[in-house]
Amino acid sequence: MPADYEIFDLGDFGLQRGATIRGCKLAYKTFGTLNAAKDNVVVYPTWYSGQHYDNEWLIGPGRALDPAHLFIIIPNMLGNGLSSSPSNTPEPYNAGRFPLVTACDNVRAQHRLVTELFGIERIRLVVGWSMGALQTFHWGALYPDMVERIAPFCGSAKCSRHNIVFLEGVKAALTADAVFADGWYTTKPARGLRAMARVYAGWGFSQAFYREQLDIKTLGYSSLEDFLVAFWEGFFLPKDPNNLLTMLWTWQNGDISDNELYDGDFAKALGAIKAKAYVMPGQTDLYFPPEDSAFEVAHMPDATLIPVPSIWGHFAGGPGTNPVDVDFIDGKLKELLAA
Amino acid sequence: MPADYEIFDLGDFGLQRGATIRGCKLAYKTFGTLNAAKDNVVVYPTWYSGQHYDNEWLIGPGRALDPAHLFIIIPNMLGNGLSSSPSNTPEPYNAGRFPLVTACDNVRAQHRLVTELFGIERIRLVVGWSMGALQTFHWGALYPDMVERIAPFCGSAKCSRHNIVFLEGVKAALTADAVFADGWYTTKPARGLRAMARVYAGWGFSQAFYREQLDIKTLGYSSLEDFLVAFWEGFFLPKDPNNLLTMLWTWQNGDISDNELYDGDFAKALGAIKAKAYVMPGQTDLYFPPEDSAFEVAHMPDATLIPVPSIWGHFAGGPGTNPVDVDFIDGKLKELLAA
Repeated sequence: MPADYEIFDLGDFGLQRGATIRGCKLAYKTFGTLNAAKDNVVVYPTWYSGQHYDNEWLIGPGRALDPAHLFIIIPNMLGNGLSSSPSNTPEPYNAGRFPLVTACDNVRAQHRLVTELFGIERIRLVVGWSMGALQTFHWGALYPDMVERIAPFCGSAKCSRHNIVFLEGVKAALTADAVFADGWYTTKPARGLRAMARVYAGWGFSQAFYREQLDIKTLGYSSLEDFLVAFWEGFFLPKDPNNLLTMLWTWQNGDISDNELYDGDFAKALGAIKAKAYVMPGQTDLYFPPEDSAFEVAHMPDATLIPVPSIWGHFAGGPGTNPVDVDFIDGKLKELLAA
Repeated sequence: MPADYEIFDLGDFGLQRGATIRGCKLAYKTFGTLNAAKDNVVVYPTWYSGQHYDNEWLIGPGRALDPAHLFIIIPNMLGNGLSSSPSNTPEPYNAGRFPLVTACDNVRAQHRLVTELFGIERIRLVVGWSMGALQTFHWGALYPDMVERIAPFCGSAKCSRHNIVFLEGVKAALTADAVFADGWYTTKPARGLRAMARVYAGWGFSQAFYREQLDIKTLGYSSLEDFLVAFWEGFFLPKDPNNLLTMLWTWQNGDISDNELYDGDFAKALGAIKAKAYVMPGQTDLYFPPEDSAFEVAHMPDATLIPVPSIWGHFAGGPGTNPVDVDFIDGKLKELLAA
């Protein structure tokens, strides 16, 4: 099967933390056609461990993200296995030596794709789930005059301390498996990946989701243990551990103000976002609680807080798991795009 | 230093799941004096990984649990390292072969201590935090005519599905360390214990606790990482892994109706609790959310729901970590004891 995506060559790409990825690759996929005015652009970054095809659930005829009239670009996050990653980078920056990549690095790479390759100067909307939301906020803060609208959902502009701790647990579970060998594994650390999956399982969906047995009654798994094995372990086992840890570091260190524009002043960075913003936390998201979104919205000049009324926790909406939430988010995106 | 506790010999103690612990030991400590009428008794079971001295913060002069007029018994949970446990049981039921113990087993053992050793027929109050609350509910359901009052806080009468999943993550992190060797470790699986601690860290305290930096500002740790190492890893590293897994299984399988009295009818078991009950969930507890307590209270004949207004998550009150919460719980216990 031929690859369904393109590669943009970033050349020698210097990173915030000092390393340079030589011959850095940014994988992306587009939907629809860029119009002559180049004013029908949507950028839709990927989420933790996701690849562009994991974003496609929100795109389609009749949806807000309709390729019939929009030009939608999905850039793959660095470290996700398609863009430059531990798993596909040649020595010496391969595997356990892949450099630290920030969300700011990611969005600057995406900006080069958008401007250099396509000559785009205005973006109608940046939208994303989870770490895609983190990148969405970065777009708003780093390129305030370029981005007209943002719609980050189930994510934040800065990784909260609690979220950092949650991820420490995920990381510790994976790396407790000695097969991981500090990233120099020769066989897959399956025990660590399964442990990581089980840790994640409690965080991904809400207490109410499990209480209502939606894993069985809606998603169709045959038991709670079946859900843990088939959904959660099945989700993480195929993924490369170093890639997962690269993206995890990106997540933990996500902060729209951690750059020379804002020098760590988070409120200032939020205040600089000119885009009209719909900030949509999941009402029951355990690691991106609505309270953090409320703080962000309060410091942004043109933002509206729209909690997704769902008991699906972090999976309220993404990645298309619950159709009711998908429709809710899609409806809000239509509203935002019409504004 | 001489032991500050006593041992009650249960003899050959048959367990719900079929095994028998021969020469089964129940470690306990008492405070105060049993009066002549034997009507001043409080039973106060221990929590996950805790031992009797970890319960003492709620006992003292001027407190609801005042040894000047109450006779307080703290029975140590089976598996906690003082009562019969993987770490102190001789072959062949030692270490990785220690049998499965339910909360029902624990409370039946405690009932024998209370009746056979002390000749007690009425209990004024059973109280406990977390897994201590689980045992407290069991006391109410198994001995409804004996227990006058119960005060379970930050716990439940039945382990919720989400709570089971949270514990699966904890267990997977510990056992991802190959040194654990299915319970037949010859050196401490420190990597697994540290991983388990980091997983637990995100669950133990609430998002708001971390947002407000109470780990630093109130508890006095020097950084978030210092809190993870000094508090959390320091908490789990000294504990025996098989003991931890024995108690974890007890927790996951906790259910007051899982016995011949109620045949799995949870509502019926709750309805059978005659004790006047103050059920006190932590308002921000991530694994014992107040919604589960509300269900329980709705099915109990004489129960009041009293959420602890705290952002300390599961540590609202226990184990004495936050003085404000301790005072709140102590005040409610005074009220309940006076009723």
